[in-house]
Amino acid sequence: MTDLARQRFASAPVAVLATVSVDNTPHLVPITFAVGDDLIVTGIDHKPKQTTRLRRLDNIAANPAVSVLANHYDSDDWTQLWWARADGTARVVSPDDPEHPPLATLLGEVYPQYREHPIAGPIIAIAVERWSTWSGS
Amino acid sequence: MTDLARQRFASAPVAVLATVSVDNTPHLVPITFAVGDDLIVTGIDHKPKQTTRLRRLDNIAANPAVSVLANHYDSDDWTQLWWARADGTARVVSPDDPEHPPLATLLGEVYPQYREHPIAGPIIAIAVERWSTWSGS
Repeated sequence: MTDLARQRFASAPVAVLATVSVDNTPHLVPITFAVGDDLIVTGIDHKPKQTTRLRRLDNIAANPAVSVLANHYDSDDWTQLWWARADGTARVVSPDDPEHPPLATLLGEVYPQYREHPIAGPIIAIAVERWSTWSGS
Repeated sequence: MTDLARQRFASAPVAVLATVSVDNTPHLVPITFAVGDDLIVTGIDHKPKQTTRLRRLDNIAANPAVSVLANHYDSDDWTQLWWARADGTARVVSPDDPEHPPLATLLGEVYPQYREHPIAGPIIAIAVERWSTWSGS
């Protein structure tokens, strides 16, 4: 089950990251990501929406519990639906951290865009504690 | 901005609903949904994963703050990316509530599957307090 969930998750091009604000409201952002065993990494690439990105990081600093969901939709055939979810604990790896370059490389292996323009901002590293998945078939 | 966000959101076939558990961890599930002005509705259709569905409802009963995100991804052209998010307050409408049939009809207008098999379980009605959106172009 864990292997199937991880495999489906890793096959998705994009996922949704949920963090929780200090006032206990959920905050959602779509993320690009890379998966390594029970690790998910996603980067902050310094584009617009600086405030949104800071909120994500602020939330993790105050409450590291996160959830990430990838899903596949087929409008005609609901037996083809699936989702995969990773629940875990996040930490923020700053650009000057020695761990940053290898994590940035992981992202470059998945996205050509990140080989041309490596992640310059912080990287969020999520230790996955539970994988789950579902399919409509 | 609000109109654009709502329009993009409504064009997506599926979205991700985030609720917060009593222990302040985020919980994510993909949802089918319908949009009416500042209202989002999604139903519980009594398929497998009863426990997951109950968790969503339990969370809302304890903490009605929710966030819902729809996003569009294009692997080749990141200028085509967009996401739209709705933050608001949820309540659960039980099948015997007089509000249930019109909300179920809203879902049937979006999904042919729900015209053939109307939502039999509770419907989550979300009063949207803030719409936001972003695009890569």
